[in-house]
Amino acid sequence: MRLRNKPGAMDRIKQFPNLVIDKPEALKGLWKKQFNNYNPINIEIGTGRGDFIVGMAKLHPQVNFIGIEKYTSVIIDAMEKVIEEGLTNIVFLNKDADKLTEYFEKNEVGRVYLNFSDPWPKSRHHKRRLTHKNFLDKYKLIMPDNGEVHFKTDNVNLFEFSLQSLSEENFILQNISLDLHNSGIKNNVMTEYERKFSEKGQKIMRLEAKLK
Amino acid sequence: MRLRNKPGAMDRIKQFPNLVIDKPEALKGLWKKQFNNYNPINIEIGTGRGDFIVGMAKLHPQVNFIGIEKYTSVIIDAMEKVIEEGLTNIVFLNKDADKLTEYFEKNEVGRVYLNFSDPWPKSRHHKRRLTHKNFLDKYKLIMPDNGEVHFKTDNVNLFEFSLQSLSEENFILQNISLDLHNSGIKNNVMTEYERKFSEKGQKIMRLEAKLK
Repeated sequence: MRLRNKPGAMDRIKQFPNLVIDKPEALKGLWKKQFNNYNPINIEIGTGRGDFIVGMAKLHPQVNFIGIEKYTSVIIDAMEKVIEEGLTNIVFLNKDADKLTEYFEKNEVGRVYLNFSDPWPKSRHHKRRLTHKNFLDKYKLIMPDNGEVHFKTDNVNLFEFSLQSLSEENFILQNISLDLHNSGIKNNVMTEYERKFSEKGQKIMRLEAKLK
Repeated sequence: MRLRNKPGAMDRIKQFPNLVIDKPEALKGLWKKQFNNYNPINIEIGTGRGDFIVGMAKLHPQVNFIGIEKYTSVIIDAMEKVIEEGLTNIVFLNKDADKLTEYFEKNEVGRVYLNFSDPWPKSRHHKRRLTHKNFLDKYKLIMPDNGEVHFKTDNVNLFEFSLQSLSEENFILQNISLDLHNSGIKNNVMTEYERKFSEKGQKIMRLEAKLK
């Protein structure tokens, strides 16, 4: 579904070059200037249709958000939400997460949000998981020493893998919930998937991990 | 139930002083001599009626096991199982875990098993949890640098707490399972509680944690 082409999406996106940044390499080390303030910058990898990051941007006006999503056909929906809401503390990158370190320099990103990331169930694909060491190493190169990864999923195997991987790679685990929606948490901003899955009675798991 | 007195239990236990060790302080640093070999020594805290540790001792004849259980009325059942099986690689301590460091010296215990430990749900009692920093600090004083804690429970809050506590206290998390009995694990030795709970459809969670 995600891959279905949406005619005209690219043209529409190009109308908002300050909202969907075409050349993030050019802003490496300069994101504070781009946002025109010194507020912290948090990113979400795999933003999808943007319910989470747009909700977060509304809830936290003193934080800047960058949503990264490789599929044009869904990021356009996220973009339209921001235009409708008139938010100024959020931008998007229509890019793959592989090149994060070309877009951000050390200390530039305070927090990485990962929500319902692809579980890549086959062992030979585990290295593509966004909580695999390969990606954690990239996050370390753009975060400060106490940077954080916040992660939600409904996939048990991916959650187990992520706990281990983060623990092995020098993150301290915090605020773990194995059943988020029954944990009494406040201000949980839901993703599109989260709403769908939890309505089906699926348990949502969440963790925060802080670099040592 | 656990606290119910069992008439004659203490007298029966006293008949087997080499199986239920009365003065473990006297063996501190001397456990290899006591077992008369150089095999690794693993302990279980809260041995109950001993299904787990007796099963482990049968399965791993080249490992020595020490079951620690404060309640005389249940440890006697564990003792009887060992007598019946004729095992020589297992002993018990009818003691509280508080004084572990008086019984064992650094490097003497390779692995600490915790199974279905008391969840102590109230916040003010969390310090009594066997995965609380207070206890982890004791385990560190009797384990080698790569010592391990292996933990099973059906209690979600205790499991969440334990993941965080172990991660904060410098353990690396490994082999995490949020649904042990559906994880394809082999050679899982069940405790009395585990059998009962899992028959009711309760999910069993498990983790291994290794000191860095």
